[in-house]
Amino acid sequence: MLVKKFGGSSVADPERVMHVAQTITEAYNDGHDVVVVVSAQGDTTDHLIEAAHIINPNPSKREMDVLLATGEQQSMALLAMAIESLGFPVISLAGWQAGIQTNSNHSAAHIRRINTERIHNELAKKNIVIVAGFQGVNRYDDITTLGRGGSDTSAVAIAAAMHADLCQIYTDVDGIYTADPRKVRGAQKLDRITYDEMLELASLGAQVLHNRSVEMAKKYNVRLDVLSSLVDLPGTKVREAVKVEKWLIKGVTSDNDVARISVCNVPDRPGIAFKIFSILGAQKINVDIILQSIGRENTKDISFTVAREMKDRAVEVLQDNLDVMDGVYFLCDDNIAKVSIVGAGMQTNHGVAARMFEALSEENINIQMISTSEIKISVLIKKSDSERAVQAIHDAFIS
Amino acid sequence: MLVKKFGGSSVADPERVMHVAQTITEAYNDGHDVVVVVSAQGDTTDHLIEAAHIINPNPSKREMDVLLATGEQQSMALLAMAIESLGFPVISLAGWQAGIQTNSNHSAAHIRRINTERIHNELAKKNIVIVAGFQGVNRYDDITTLGRGGSDTSAVAIAAAMHADLCQIYTDVDGIYTADPRKVRGAQKLDRITYDEMLELASLGAQVLHNRSVEMAKKYNVRLDVLSSLVDLPGTKVREAVKVEKWLIKGVTSDNDVARISVCNVPDRPGIAFKIFSILGAQKINVDIILQSIGRENTKDISFTVAREMKDRAVEVLQDNLDVMDGVYFLCDDNIAKVSIVGAGMQTNHGVAARMFEALSEENINIQMISTSEIKISVLIKKSDSERAVQAIHDAFIS
Repeated sequence: MLVKKFGGSSVADPERVMHVAQTITEAYNDGHDVVVVVSAQGDTTDHLIEAAHIINPNPSKREMDVLLATGEQQSMALLAMAIESLGFPVISLAGWQAGIQTNSNHSAAHIRRINTERIHNELAKKNIVIVAGFQGVNRYDDITTLGRGGSDTSAVAIAAAMHADLCQIYTDVDGIYTADPRKVRGAQKLDRITYDEMLELASLGAQVLHNRSVEMAKKYNVRLDVLSSLVDLPGTKVREAVKVEKWLIKGVTSDNDVARISVCNVPDRPGIAFKIFSILGAQKINVDIILQSIGRENTKDISFTVAREMKDRAVEVLQDNLDVMDGVYFLCDDNIAKVSIVGAGMQTNHGVAARMFEALSEENINIQMISTSEIKISVLIKKSDSERAVQAIHDAFIS
Repeated sequence: MLVKKFGGSSVADPERVMHVAQTITEAYNDGHDVVVVVSAQGDTTDHLIEAAHIINPNPSKREMDVLLATGEQQSMALLAMAIESLGFPVISLAGWQAGIQTNSNHSAAHIRRINTERIHNELAKKNIVIVAGFQGVNRYDDITTLGRGGSDTSAVAIAAAMHADLCQIYTDVDGIYTADPRKVRGAQKLDRITYDEMLELASLGAQVLHNRSVEMAKKYNVRLDVLSSLVDLPGTKVREAVKVEKWLIKGVTSDNDVARISVCNVPDRPGIAFKIFSILGAQKINVDIILQSIGRENTKDISFTVAREMKDRAVEVLQDNLDVMDGVYFLCDDNIAKVSIVGAGMQTNHGVAARMFEALSEENINIQMISTSEIKISVLIKKSDSERAVQAIHDAFIS
C-alpha cells in the first residue's frame, strides 16, 4: 500500500491535476493499493482567507476552519474526476468521511486517531481513495484544520494508521538538498536522510516537509520519500537507520528571520535565567539559541534569539514583568542570520565545528554566538554575511 | 422560531452578506430562535461546474456533489463570520452536520428525514444557526445535493422538522406577482396565495419558489413567506386556507420553451394513447397538455406538448418504438407559447374560460389547444402572440 501526498502547487491547474492523476493511476496499475492525500489548489487557501477578512478581520477559528476546509474538498473532487476520466475507480473523502479525528484546537488541531474503516472498505472495493489533507473533525462533529502544511501530517498519519509500505510526499522540488540549490553552488540532492536530520533541517528553514509530519513519521517509523511531482526521479528517502553515510554533513541552511535580544547587567544569582525564559514561555514566545556570559561585579548578560517578528513583543513582556532589577538594560539586533550545519554523525567527529569555524574565518566572517546539539551546529553572524557563509561552509564540507 | 432562507444573489458579495447578517440579527434581537438556510454565493455553482468540466466533461454525480457542496459551505461560513462581526453568537452547519439525511440519488437527492438534535442543541445555547442549503448526506456518509433550487427545499424541510412558526424565503423579487412585472403593465403583488396556486404558477414558469419546496410546504402545512432580501416589505404569504379572495385569478404566465408534437393518422383503437405515453414515460419525457382529435376513416390525431429541448428526442423514441403502424406521421411545432391563468376559485366560476377566450379573440389571437384543471386554464398560441396575450388576459381579469 502506498500513501501519496500532493501539495497545492502540484494540483494548481487542470493540466497539473491530470498529470497527478496519471502518476496515481500508474501506481494503481502496478498493483498497489493507493491512498492519495491532496492539498487545496494553488493559492485557494490565501484567497479564502482574504474573502473572510473582507467580511470580518477577526473571524472565529471554528468558522475559518469551515471555510478553509472547502479548498481541499474542491481539489479532492477535481482530482477524483480527473482519475475517472482516465477510466479508473476512485472515491474522494473529506476529513470527517475518512475518519480523521482531531482535538478541538481549531486552526492548529492535532490528529487524535484515524478510524480507518471507510478507507479500508473503499480499498477493498478496489477504489483509489483520495483524502482531503489539512482537515479533520473533532468529537462534536465540527470541522477542524491542522494548520499550514498540515497535509503532510495528514499523509503520514494515514500511512501510520493504515500500516502503509511507503508514504510519498510529492512537492515542487525533487528531494532534500544539502543547501538551497537556488542560492548555493554545488548543492547536492541527498539519497537518504534520517528523521532527526530532517527535523533539524525543517526547523532551520528548509521548508520541504512540515515538522510535525516528520516527528510523526519518526514516532511510527513511517518510510517517507520526498519526490518531485513534475519529474520522475528517485527523490530523497527519509528513514530511521542509515548505515552508510556518503556525507557526514547532510545540509547547510540559513535563517535570516531571527533577532538576538541581550538582557544585560542582570544580577548573577540563581533563578534569573529561569525567570526570563518562563516569562517568555508564558507568552508562547519560542526562544532558540541561548548564551550566558559572565559580566563584571556580580552581574551577567543573557542573550537569546527569537523569530524576528516576536522581537518587540519579547522585549515588552520582559520590561513589564522583569521588574525587580535596577541597571538592567536590553540590546536588540535583527541584522543577523543563523547559519547551521546538520548531520547525524556530528557528535563523534570533533573536527566538524573547527572546520566550520575555519571556513567562516577564511571568509573573514565574525561569529557572534554559537549553539551546538548532537546533530547540529548553529552560528549567529551578520545578516549581510549569510550567503557567503553558507557557500563557504558548503564548499568546505560537501562540494 | 423562524427559518430564513437566502438565495445566491442575496449573498453575492460582502456588502450583501453584511446586509443579510443585519436582517438575521434583527430577528434574533426581537427574541426569535433563528435558523438560516443559505445558498452558494452568486455564480459560484456555475463556476465550479465549469472547473469540473475542464477536467472531465462527464464526471460522476457523486464527485460533482462533493464539489458543489463546497459552495454552500463557503457562504455559510462567511455569513457566520459577518454575524460574528456584529457581536452575535452563531454557528454554521453543513448538511451532514445539520442532520439532513437524503437518499442516494446524487445531484437530485430527496430529503428522507432531518435529525434535528444538533440544531436544537445550538438553539438551546442561544446560537443563531446557519445551515448550508442544497445539500445533505446519505446513509453511507456521502455528500448529496438536492438539485437546482434545492435550498428552498432545505429551508422548508427544516421548518417542517423543527415545527417553525414561519419559513421566510428571501429572494431578489419582493413577492409573487399576478404576472411578470418586467413584462406586463399593471402586474400586482399578491398578499396571499395557496400552495396549489403557487404550484401551478411555479410549474408554469414563475420561477420564484422551487416546486418541490412548495409541495413539501403543503404536505407539512409550513407557513411560507416570499420576501425581498433588499427592501423591508411584507411580501407574499403562501398558506393553505385563504378565506377572502381579492382576485379570483392569481396570476397570468407564459412559457415559450414548449413544443407541440402531433402523431397523425394513428388507428382509432383502444390502447394507442397508452402506448404513446408509456413510451415517452419510460424515457422520462414529461408530457404536458394532451389533445386527441377525431380523424377520417378510423384514424385519429394525438397531440401533446413537451419542453422544447425534449422535442427531437420525443419524436425519435416514438419513431423507434411505435413501429406497428403504416401511414402514421409526425408534426412538430416549437413556434408556440403556452399562456395560463391560475386561481383557486376557477372551477366554480364557469365564466372564467369564456372571459379568457374573449380577451384573446379581441386581440385576434388564435387558440391552437386548450387544457383546463381545477385551478388553471392553459392555451397554446403562436409564440409571437405570447406577450400581447398575457397583457390582454391580465387586463381582462386583474387590472
